[in-house]
Amino acid sequence: MNKIEPKNIVVIGGGTGTFVVLKGLKHTPHHLSAIVAMSDSGGSNKRIRDEFGLLPTSDIRQCLVALSNENGEAGLLRKLFMYRFEKGEGISGMTFGNLFMAALADILGSQAEAIRQTASVLRIHGQVIPVTLSDTNLFAEYENGEVLSEEHLIDEPPHDGTVKITNVYLKPAATANPEAVAAIHAADLIVIGPGDLYTSLVPNLLVDGISDAISASRGKKVYVLNLMTKFGQTHNFAASDHLRVIKEFVGNHIDAVIVNSAPLPQAALDVYAKYHEAPVVDNLELTKGTQILREDIAGRRITTKSKSDALVRSLIRHDSAKLARVLMSLL
Amino acid sequence: MNKIEPKNIVVIGGGTGTFVVLKGLKHTPHHLSAIVAMSDSGGSNKRIRDEFGLLPTSDIRQCLVALSNENGEAGLLRKLFMYRFEKGEGISGMTFGNLFMAALADILGSQAEAIRQTASVLRIHGQVIPVTLSDTNLFAEYENGEVLSEEHLIDEPPHDGTVKITNVYLKPAATANPEAVAAIHAADLIVIGPGDLYTSLVPNLLVDGISDAISASRGKKVYVLNLMTKFGQTHNFAASDHLRVIKEFVGNHIDAVIVNSAPLPQAALDVYAKYHEAPVVDNLELTKGTQILREDIAGRRITTKSKSDALVRSLIRHDSAKLARVLMSLL
Repeated sequence: MNKIEPKNIVVIGGGTGTFVVLKGLKHTPHHLSAIVAMSDSGGSNKRIRDEFGLLPTSDIRQCLVALSNENGEAGLLRKLFMYRFEKGEGISGMTFGNLFMAALADILGSQAEAIRQTASVLRIHGQVIPVTLSDTNLFAEYENGEVLSEEHLIDEPPHDGTVKITNVYLKPAATANPEAVAAIHAADLIVIGPGDLYTSLVPNLLVDGISDAISASRGKKVYVLNLMTKFGQTHNFAASDHLRVIKEFVGNHIDAVIVNSAPLPQAALDVYAKYHEAPVVDNLELTKGTQILREDIAGRRITTKSKSDALVRSLIRHDSAKLARVLMSLL
Repeated sequence: MNKIEPKNIVVIGGGTGTFVVLKGLKHTPHHLSAIVAMSDSGGSNKRIRDEFGLLPTSDIRQCLVALSNENGEAGLLRKLFMYRFEKGEGISGMTFGNLFMAALADILGSQAEAIRQTASVLRIHGQVIPVTLSDTNLFAEYENGEVLSEEHLIDEPPHDGTVKITNVYLKPAATANPEAVAAIHAADLIVIGPGDLYTSLVPNLLVDGISDAISASRGKKVYVLNLMTKFGQTHNFAASDHLRVIKEFVGNHIDAVIVNSAPLPQAALDVYAKYHEAPVVDNLELTKGTQILREDIAGRRITTKSKSDALVRSLIRHDSAKLARVLMSLL
């Protein structure tokens, strides 16, 4: 058997989609870096930001869980990290992992160091890197003139979900974490997505220095398309619409797009339809320099709500193992 | 060099005094079991009991910290265990260790198992055993007819602190944890105290089966006297008064009493005097079968308040190392 040379893979995103990618890649011999958006401001993160004065940690926590060792003592700590308190006034709804990282950040005097130490305790395969250490917020402007200023509001906007986003930006401007830039620089493969286009992927690309680093990297750049549109964010977006938005940030430097070609479970589609959400239509045409990979990468299982917030956001998700195989074929 | 045969040492108490004893014994080769009172109902423990429906964990947590490995990863978790949140509505004032054990108890479905797993994660030297798994409360009756029903109230009674306690009991009655009985049964040395007489030591002896187990054990029984009286609980108590109370529970089966013979720092005594507290007067007389060890076992440092609640309760404390040496001489 040939020994596989470990390569550097960077996964950019932060939400459930990134969780799925990392879970699949965890069992490869490659070196993984997850670069995580830091503009979330909802739920547990809102409290972490407002009351503890820290950067949001929920997406960081999910990536740590995705890459952590599932056995032995680290496995026990992993379970704790996924745990959300259901009792205790003021504590109910908080995740243990966020409180763990908040306490550690206070003890160590550095949130970045707290993330590194947590990664070590959880015996993670790879590293989890906040895209920025700047305290910033995501803003979105809509075609009806409205401006929304927090990621969790943009996720579920109070207005009609067919209204299109015309512009997104971070305020104040955020500077790239040098560790993120270094990981992108050293990458053999850069995986963008899957994930909510405007609230998980673009918030990374908006950080000063990240899009430039991606463009300049010698690594192969891959965009994994979402399975479903998202009402209020990518309503009626076809594959080409998604790709266009990504290219606005990283230019034409996308070497490959991965699209699901398998049918999705009808029972789940029926639920999505009620929320005006539908499979992303594959209208991609052969473009010079961009490879289109049409593969069966959809999960067969319909996900139901679980205690862990890593799993509550979508009913149909990519299949970790199938997606990992396609990604490996690009190395 | 002769190899020391490891012996079984049981330390009974729960509060700061037990912390000091365990810290000193941790570096011996002996097998340590800390048996901890479970009737505390103040502060963080009140919330753990009322809101989480669990047994109190603060004293358990302190004993785990005392026995835990101070280096490497366990050392980092140890620091987290001592951490008390200062931010977060509903979270401020809670200790991380209590939240850790509450989450783990929910995940594992057993608080006893959560304590064992925590002990393993913290790499503790020995074991920490709740004296009972019964949900119970401490009651105290006073010579003025008053009855108080929670340990934290008895610790700082609302009435004149010179009023004497005439009776204490647990309600509902509590049954000994079989692990505690087994440890006492196997003990070569049983150390009772130091610690608040009525709120740390006696609550252990009140648990059905504990006093009997101590009386029946072949192990040497040692009582370590407090350095200072406690207003509202042991006001004006001499050494013989303390010993009398202990003997009410375990009979005449006290093989040795350890009394401090060194002077205490005047600056600290001045502070105590303001709170009507004074050094325990050594009026012990030679009693058949009970050895009296008068030794310099007092700490020289005056403790100031710290973040960790292990250290806030007393200004003058026993010296861990000196006390451990005296205890070792009894083996």
